[in-house]
Amino acid sequence: VSEPCRYRATVAYVGTFFHGWQRQKNAERTVQAAVEKALAKIAGRPVTVHASGRTDTGVHADGQVVHFDLLAALTPERLREGANGLLPWDVKLLEVARVPAGFHARRDAVWKEYLYRWSRAKVIPPSEALVVAPLSGRADAVAMAEAARLLPGERDFGVFAVRRLHGQSGVRTLYGVTLEQRGDEVRALFRGDGFLRGMVRSICGVLADVGRGKAPAERISRLLASGDRRLLSPKADACGLTLMRVSYEESTNCPKLNP
Amino acid sequence: VSEPCRYRATVAYVGTFFHGWQRQKNAERTVQAAVEKALAKIAGRPVTVHASGRTDTGVHADGQVVHFDLLAALTPERLREGANGLLPWDVKLLEVARVPAGFHARRDAVWKEYLYRWSRAKVIPPSEALVVAPLSGRADAVAMAEAARLLPGERDFGVFAVRRLHGQSGVRTLYGVTLEQRGDEVRALFRGDGFLRGMVRSICGVLADVGRGKAPAERISRLLASGDRRLLSPKADACGLTLMRVSYEESTNCPKLNP
Repeated sequence: VSEPCRYRATVAYVGTFFHGWQRQKNAERTVQAAVEKALAKIAGRPVTVHASGRTDTGVHADGQVVHFDLLAALTPERLREGANGLLPWDVKLLEVARVPAGFHARRDAVWKEYLYRWSRAKVIPPSEALVVAPLSGRADAVAMAEAARLLPGERDFGVFAVRRLHGQSGVRTLYGVTLEQRGDEVRALFRGDGFLRGMVRSICGVLADVGRGKAPAERISRLLASGDRRLLSPKADACGLTLMRVSYEESTNCPKLNP
Repeated sequence: VSEPCRYRATVAYVGTFFHGWQRQKNAERTVQAAVEKALAKIAGRPVTVHASGRTDTGVHADGQVVHFDLLAALTPERLREGANGLLPWDVKLLEVARVPAGFHARRDAVWKEYLYRWSRAKVIPPSEALVVAPLSGRADAVAMAEAARLLPGERDFGVFAVRRLHGQSGVRTLYGVTLEQRGDEVRALFRGDGFLRGMVRSICGVLADVGRGKAPAERISRLLASGDRRLLSPKADACGLTLMRVSYEESTNCPKLNP
């Protein structure tokens, strides 16, 4: 009997046609179930896949990270190719590596990066429509950038969590938020040591209202200071959100984003 | 009774989940049927949509052009918004305009542009996988560009047509073919006064074999000179091909692409 090997994989998916990351009892199509099914076929027995964190229904990933154990000692390349051949078009393993048995995708994560994409085009072309959310053509990206600058720091972000937190701390460190325009597109990139459930989409809802002139940039400061959820805007659509990267390195460089 | 108005629309679609452009009797999902259904709902009666040309199953469009007639005199903006609200995610009207009753999307087209995209990445991320075809990481884009330079001109391209032409002329003018690398990606852009059925994918199949070192760049010249279909490579996958643009203007500028 061979020793189990632990593997780390970087997983990319278009979340549109999945009911989120997490496997569900009611047999909904989820990313975790799809990856576990492919790996089980290769391993010849059930495999449990542990992610750095869940993503909600409709949210995408360019760099979700997972770990899992296999008894079969396959090379990472063969495992990646075998799994990708079995996986549907909307989820693939970008990279696979063997890691020490102590590695844990969620507990060892040091920081994460999320990207939110809006388009101010009159019509979003189908080739981008799954991963970009609509925004009014008149939206003011300069005001949105001003609001985004009020976010970084070690703060209680509990007001932006999808549910009120009972006992649990809402304190997280946002290293940086950069908001940039690229043609019709407005992008917000968030880097932090952790994100509360629904936090990025809730922040982006406020940013979009700031862009539309429905809220002043200072709304962000008032939300953070007061924790008053009545000041929130509707949450931004899941379709615009992508988990870009999970880092496991305590970089000697400050992970602050360039302004 | 009002006069019928003729409209021109620019249509974008991800072709993956359609059985090509053309409406079919067997109720397959086609782009034409989807657009006609949306317009019929708005018009309250059947509408026939005429495209600049068909695209095959799995081929995409960023700028297909169509014309159709409506009795209702709707503004182009309302028509676009109404239709897009009814259309599925994978096909949208990017622009709608009223045009003179004599306008004909196919007969009046002066030139067209097709783009073929390959990726040399080990794994193509799902967010691009629908519109990019895989190519070996070792493929030589310089050799492919060399082969592409042998294509432009007024020539008989019949050897690249999906079927032997009976009587019909295979002569078309390719104004230019540009092949460029962008990171892992290799792109070939074709501009010409007309394209035979299957011609771009057949050419791209040869270009890919040149990149892989399975054929010399001169294979293109030999194919054009001999018309010998035994020298062809397998046709490139539909998923990499996008109809980018249809032009109706006899530009005073030569439509030759920049080298």
